[in-house]
Amino acid sequence: MAGEKTDVKLTHAEQCIKDLVATFYDCSRKDKDQENLSLEEFRELVKKNFPNYLKGVNLEEKIKELDTNNDKQMKFSEFLKLIGELVKTVKRCEKAKHTC
Amino acid sequence: MAGEKTDVKLTHAEQCIKDLVATFYDCSRKDKDQENLSLEEFRELVKKNFPNYLKGVNLEEKIKELDTNNDKQMKFSEFLKLIGELVKTVKRCEKAKHTC
Repeated sequence: MAGEKTDVKLTHAEQCIKDLVATFYDCSRKDKDQENLSLEEFRELVKKNFPNYLKGVNLEEKIKELDTNNDKQMKFSEFLKLIGELVKTVKRCEKAKHTC
Repeated sequence: MAGEKTDVKLTHAEQCIKDLVATFYDCSRKDKDQENLSLEEFRELVKKNFPNYLKGVNLEEKIKELDTNNDKQMKFSEFLKLIGELVKTVKRCEKAKHTC
């Protein structure tokens, strides 16, 4: 499995994956700990990137659910769990042929 | 957690998630079983959508690895496992500040 080189033209799906990773780093690199999101950074990430998909979701409850080791930080794996949940929600919606 | 309505403007990150789900359905709906990918559909999905990220990967080995229940079909959850792997690979690459 290879990462792409700068001169490689990514497909749309590949670019989507790259851009989702970038949403994490765009927020995590705002403080000294660049590899984890502080809870403040996580709240900012959600507001900026998932205002529709997480509309009506109690963010503090979601944080408790995702931050399984309760260290008040969001590791990349915990962020990835959220992405997985969102993908599954959109998929259910698509399967049910709702207006998604 | 709410799906978006048609009149809602998705953010780029939300659109990425929606488009990744669409890559699955674009291929899975080519035969009668619309909710699973046949192995042929899966091969087509990979070639079309992840030619760079899965370059050099033995596709038949990858299928064996992902198709954990060995039913010669790719369920959405198995596809999601692949997406998760790709996200983690791109993330490692980003962390190492490789040319990704």
